[in-house]
Amino acid sequence: MTFSSFAPPVRTLMGPGPSDVDPRVLAAMSRPIIGHLDPAFIAMMEEVREMMRYAFQTQNALTLPISAPGSAGMEACFANLVEPGDKVIVCINGVFGGRMKENVERCGGTAIVVEDDWGQPVSPAKVEAALAEHPDARILAFVHAETSTGACSDVQALCELAHRHGCLSLVDTVTSLGGSPLHVDDWGVDAVYSGSQKCLSCTPGLSPVSFSEAAIERIRTRRTRVQSWFLDMNLVMGYWIGAGGKRAYHHTAPVNALYALHEALVILHEEGLEASWARHQRHHQALRAGIEAMGLRFLVDAPHRLPQLNAILVPDGVDEAAVRKALLDHYSLEIGAGLGPYAGRIWRIGLMGQAANERNVLLCLSALESVLADMGAVSSGQAVPAAHAAYRGAAQAKAA
Amino acid sequence: MTFSSFAPPVRTLMGPGPSDVDPRVLAAMSRPIIGHLDPAFIAMMEEVREMMRYAFQTQNALTLPISAPGSAGMEACFANLVEPGDKVIVCINGVFGGRMKENVERCGGTAIVVEDDWGQPVSPAKVEAALAEHPDARILAFVHAETSTGACSDVQALCELAHRHGCLSLVDTVTSLGGSPLHVDDWGVDAVYSGSQKCLSCTPGLSPVSFSEAAIERIRTRRTRVQSWFLDMNLVMGYWIGAGGKRAYHHTAPVNALYALHEALVILHEEGLEASWARHQRHHQALRAGIEAMGLRFLVDAPHRLPQLNAILVPDGVDEAAVRKALLDHYSLEIGAGLGPYAGRIWRIGLMGQAANERNVLLCLSALESVLADMGAVSSGQAVPAAHAAYRGAAQAKAA
Repeated sequence: MTFSSFAPPVRTLMGPGPSDVDPRVLAAMSRPIIGHLDPAFIAMMEEVREMMRYAFQTQNALTLPISAPGSAGMEACFANLVEPGDKVIVCINGVFGGRMKENVERCGGTAIVVEDDWGQPVSPAKVEAALAEHPDARILAFVHAETSTGACSDVQALCELAHRHGCLSLVDTVTSLGGSPLHVDDWGVDAVYSGSQKCLSCTPGLSPVSFSEAAIERIRTRRTRVQSWFLDMNLVMGYWIGAGGKRAYHHTAPVNALYALHEALVILHEEGLEASWARHQRHHQALRAGIEAMGLRFLVDAPHRLPQLNAILVPDGVDEAAVRKALLDHYSLEIGAGLGPYAGRIWRIGLMGQAANERNVLLCLSALESVLADMGAVSSGQAVPAAHAAYRGAAQAKAA
Repeated sequence: MTFSSFAPPVRTLMGPGPSDVDPRVLAAMSRPIIGHLDPAFIAMMEEVREMMRYAFQTQNALTLPISAPGSAGMEACFANLVEPGDKVIVCINGVFGGRMKENVERCGGTAIVVEDDWGQPVSPAKVEAALAEHPDARILAFVHAETSTGACSDVQALCELAHRHGCLSLVDTVTSLGGSPLHVDDWGVDAVYSGSQKCLSCTPGLSPVSFSEAAIERIRTRRTRVQSWFLDMNLVMGYWIGAGGKRAYHHTAPVNALYALHEALVILHEEGLEASWARHQRHHQALRAGIEAMGLRFLVDAPHRLPQLNAILVPDGVDEAAVRKALLDHYSLEIGAGLGPYAGRIWRIGLMGQAANERNVLLCLSALESVLADMGAVSSGQAVPAAHAAYRGAAQAKAA
């Protein structure tokens, strides 16, 4: 048997992630490796942490990337903060809330579930009721930006409720970080995790996390050891932050992946957070105009819609998988399928980070319209003019 | 505050890992990203698994890379195979055996420790006594190649003992895979993990693992859920292997890191495993000749010495950290420090993967000799001729 180097096809990634990676990030990733305790590397780590604080809008000392994908970041938050017997209020309005419940239970905690329909944001009223009913709950956990539906929940309101009832807040920002407004300190988020591969336009494989002082205090005063050695923040901190000027070896840091994250954060810092949020919104509005001009509809109501994750209802009688296959085969364009109750019923179009640009919006609209027109599901020639008008309107509003 | 792109210094990495990465691997890593469910990516994943089977010398169906560093691979093995109350015999002859004990305990198991001095291989006689004393033990866990000391243990003998006493064998091959003979199937290894960043010359961040049928059966018949969601092999398998032709989303695979691992495995396959093992041995013998010509000594006795991890005793009166700093500052050469009881007492010189070459051996010997000669600890002019003679001898032996 022989094997040869892998030459990936060149795609445009407009699914739920990973999203397109900036060529600068790919170039950074391929620079020569140095040791994970090299003084030059340690200086770079400090910059990564500083830029992560900017991205999260926090001053938290305990801000660092976990050396594994976002799912491991989620587990790091739960494994460090939940002890056996702890009661955790978990909001489920999509796949990732469900995964939080799994995490609570595997940590020996009890999950009190607050459920909302998929596509809806988390209901603060239901959360308040659950907090009142369970005064012994220790954590409120929810997803800011549900990747499975594109619904955005009100982090600030939910964190306020958590604190009023003596709970820590634990928030999933995998899809929001860099793409939607997020203010970890001002909004009172105690533990937060994200991923490198969505609105940061970095390669997948790292999970930025941050913990407030209150969360650190909870970890410090645990009665039991953290069940994961790899994700034990006491040990991870020993390497990333150190003590007395000394850093203790914990695991070998993924050096080149961290070069990539560093570069992605430099790019975000250069653009500016607010400008990045506005760019995501601008391209979302153009995409939306084109989608609606085709007669298609969004799963999520406008006020709760994420700009970076657009869940579009599949028209009756259309085979959604055939559409995605045609987009991939003919246009090398990837969009995402639905999950859970929305498998086969929605497409998920990502406009994340680097991928949130006019070229991608026009490609996606025109390719999707062509494929659907061939199936007789829409008539051609509607989407692009609508997007064009939206862009022109946005430019005029900006000039005015 | 402003941040700019990170330009790492160009180092030669001869520490305990990460080791130098082949430029082909870096080039592969920086290819454009595609989706983790893209048909082209899935075909590449299958090649990665096939080449991993070759590297491990196994036919195990459950062979795949964990999306996190070797430490997470270790945790994946323990978290899946150990249940609360299980008794595990853990051999400790260095740092990584100690870490195994931590893992057993965090999984709720009881670790029965078999201890050997650091620098010694694991003693089969002691292991046999422990197995006889604890007939209810379910797993025997040990490290093949102790990265903290450079000692190599007898995997085949230890696995035979484990099976004779009804235990599964769980083996750390982080430093051995690709560098020293390892025959997972022939030697009866039931669960094995490694790292990408040592003798595979890939970037750090992935952990190849493999499980025998007996290990899979143990996982299938667990009474409790695996405590880690991220490392639960039932779920990881759902993505990497799938069922009924379908793959279930578990976490976003680290796409570019997997391109890198694929290329590293292609390179290993091109060279051939036996040729790689022989190359590590050849350069180790030349390094050894130079080290001994300087009057320095190895921590580990020759029969148990790993070619890829050379633990050298620091001569009396020499400040070992000053030597490493001089090597890094003047020669951009990284070697490793000692750990635990050998902190300050040994250097660890890696000859791993790509870094096991004549150029590195000569650089390391001549730079180390220069630095030590400046300190008055050795006399100059001994090391290189000795290494040269060793290489000439090896070439003549091969020609004969």
